[in-house]
Amino acid sequence: MGKLARKIGIIGAGMSKFGRHFPLKRNPDLWVDAWLDAVKRVDNGIEPKDVDACYVGNYSSDLFNHQGHLGPQMANLVGLSPKPAPRMEGACASSGVAFRQALLAIASGVHDVIVVSGVECMNEVSTTLVTDTLATASDNLFEYPAGATFPGLYAAIASAHFNKYGTTHDDLKRIAIKNHENGKENPYAQMQTSIKDLMAKKVSKLESEGKDVPNWKDEMDYLNSSSNPMIASPLRLFDCSLVTDGASCVFLAAEDVAKNFTDTPIWITGTGQGSAALSLHDREELMSFIAAKEAARQAYEMAGLGPKDIQIAEVHDCFTIAELIAIEDLGFYEKGKAAGAIRDGETKRDGSLPINTSGGLKSKGHPVGATGAAMAVEVFKQMRGIAERNRQVKFDVERALTHNLGGSGATCVVTIYEK
Amino acid sequence: MGKLARKIGIIGAGMSKFGRHFPLKRNPDLWVDAWLDAVKRVDNGIEPKDVDACYVGNYSSDLFNHQGHLGPQMANLVGLSPKPAPRMEGACASSGVAFRQALLAIASGVHDVIVVSGVECMNEVSTTLVTDTLATASDNLFEYPAGATFPGLYAAIASAHFNKYGTTHDDLKRIAIKNHENGKENPYAQMQTSIKDLMAKKVSKLESEGKDVPNWKDEMDYLNSSSNPMIASPLRLFDCSLVTDGASCVFLAAEDVAKNFTDTPIWITGTGQGSAALSLHDREELMSFIAAKEAARQAYEMAGLGPKDIQIAEVHDCFTIAELIAIEDLGFYEKGKAAGAIRDGETKRDGSLPINTSGGLKSKGHPVGATGAAMAVEVFKQMRGIAERNRQVKFDVERALTHNLGGSGATCVVTIYEK
Repeated sequence: MGKLARKIGIIGAGMSKFGRHFPLKRNPDLWVDAWLDAVKRVDNGIEPKDVDACYVGNYSSDLFNHQGHLGPQMANLVGLSPKPAPRMEGACASSGVAFRQALLAIASGVHDVIVVSGVECMNEVSTTLVTDTLATASDNLFEYPAGATFPGLYAAIASAHFNKYGTTHDDLKRIAIKNHENGKENPYAQMQTSIKDLMAKKVSKLESEGKDVPNWKDEMDYLNSSSNPMIASPLRLFDCSLVTDGASCVFLAAEDVAKNFTDTPIWITGTGQGSAALSLHDREELMSFIAAKEAARQAYEMAGLGPKDIQIAEVHDCFTIAELIAIEDLGFYEKGKAAGAIRDGETKRDGSLPINTSGGLKSKGHPVGATGAAMAVEVFKQMRGIAERNRQVKFDVERALTHNLGGSGATCVVTIYEK
Repeated sequence: MGKLARKIGIIGAGMSKFGRHFPLKRNPDLWVDAWLDAVKRVDNGIEPKDVDACYVGNYSSDLFNHQGHLGPQMANLVGLSPKPAPRMEGACASSGVAFRQALLAIASGVHDVIVVSGVECMNEVSTTLVTDTLATASDNLFEYPAGATFPGLYAAIASAHFNKYGTTHDDLKRIAIKNHENGKENPYAQMQTSIKDLMAKKVSKLESEGKDVPNWKDEMDYLNSSSNPMIASPLRLFDCSLVTDGASCVFLAAEDVAKNFTDTPIWITGTGQGSAALSLHDREELMSFIAAKEAARQAYEMAGLGPKDIQIAEVHDCFTIAELIAIEDLGFYEKGKAAGAIRDGETKRDGSLPINTSGGLKSKGHPVGATGAAMAVEVFKQMRGIAERNRQVKFDVERALTHNLGGSGATCVVTIYEK
């Protein structure tokens, strides 16, 4: 694997508010929101004439919205017709894939500036159909007919990890608590509420109704209660990410052109993508994702960096167990050691390696096709020092990483960012 | 728009038999058929270890097969895990898009050899649902709810062309007759039957049943009969391409690596992609496709060639009218002049500019996601002089072109090939 033939940077990035928007907003509206949000963060401004192509990441508008062919539709909405507008898919890593292909396209010499669009509007269908649609990213010959949707598949993965490394559900609860603490500080997040706040709200509701109030001594206790119902053992409600409508937008430019737009691009120095069999039974083990390890290997090699060089990361916490496995697969912690680091608070916003300062998929939300590019938006903000409210980390971020996983780990894209 | 930073060539190409394969074969089986067919055309052989990534073009396995995330699935089937396996979509131009992204990825310096996979299995759903699924590539806010599926949209396009340029349905019949004559010579085609043969078959059937035999003096006459029923006026059955299951496979390699596999790669010297609004009412005119003209402009400019330099072309005849418009959009004929050239036989296999020697989508078949890469397969064979049966053109093909259109023209990819 070679290097990118050109140096490429992010010159602006933004996103729509993540949340339940349908039917007031659909993919086109969400995408325009994201575009406008990103445009305002390009220091010297940017217009459609400056952009060579529109790369769209989307998982399945086919099943969610009965609308395919989003590439030209999204391009047309922001005045980019008749420029190239391909759509990329890699399940929940779809805009991670689009982001990577845009990098390769700029490095090829053919394009100089590409806008990466991530978009998904999931609430057009019922929650049951959301689960059914997401299950099409697993194996529909063996897994889906057996009723194994993603909560079940990730429950199997969590059980394997618990069994092998002694990880417990308390370790997963700490991830949920941390990500909600971060999401509370993100005005673009779907759930801007800490789990402590949710607990307090529940207590005051019970009190106002004159009902018995449980003696929850902290959020961990609260998350053991029926307020956190079992979804697929050992995963409970607060182990699962959200069903979200949203869009994200990142402008990428080659070094020689980037300077027209800003003096301080965020450079992309590493990109990697890996794949694996769709079905879990075709994998050698369940406790880590070969696609993630391969994507990380490629990205580190290209950047000439290692896990110890990374200061913050956005990782794919579609389920809490996925965040724990991600920070092991990325080499931040030895296999089986992440739980201890989480327990010690290392991955908190004020810890030694802040993970998912955006709130992650758990609290920011997970409009699947928009998630990968939205990770880049958070990294862009943290590296620029412009993260909203109280979530900006307290040190200068010179090197960051994003990890965007698809399905039950059959696709992964890892990207490394430097100032 | 710049040039590709590296010279890239096709080192092998192949396809599955196109046809009605479901339920005996599904996407995975069709793809493996295509891979094996392509492998045998790589002069010095090729193995999974030689391939850096698998780029999959597919329109909507989501809706056709309730299976998304085909990238890693296809890669895994031929031993390519854990390598990068993105999927690309551009409606019926999906594997054209994948082919182009693979070119850019090799030119980027990151990869040296990429396999492009095109795949679609349409017969898993009923014909009504095929039409419904394809309609998701048009606009689902304005066109689809009004009942405008693709035959209707292309009928509107044909009517506009008839009205403006005096084109007639006889001109379209000649395209169908030509493409079936070509498909008869293609052992991979879904319909290996000329329209003359179909007419003779019908005559002998009527005779054997003792029924009145119409006095059809030729195929044109036959295509005026009830054997060619109206689908959406002015388009009849034989103006429409087929519902097909199939896969295609193309190996692309950078010049410095290509020589390990063959002494005679087919070089790609031009690539272009264009886009347009999804809905016809948002276009300035219906008689040509702005996405196709833009894609052609980019490809010609990159190759330093013009329409007059092209010796053969595979163009996107999803409907007969689409072939007529394609050869005008590509600049082979002035606007409104293609019908005359077709009448004069110029686009036949022995004419001055053979079009769709493979049989085209009309006779070879149109598994939508597989079509773009399958066009490259035909060009590869014609340029190598290995086209089967009697369809090899009689001159040495040094420069060829493919034109892969998506939806009602909202995406187009044009590629130029040279020896």
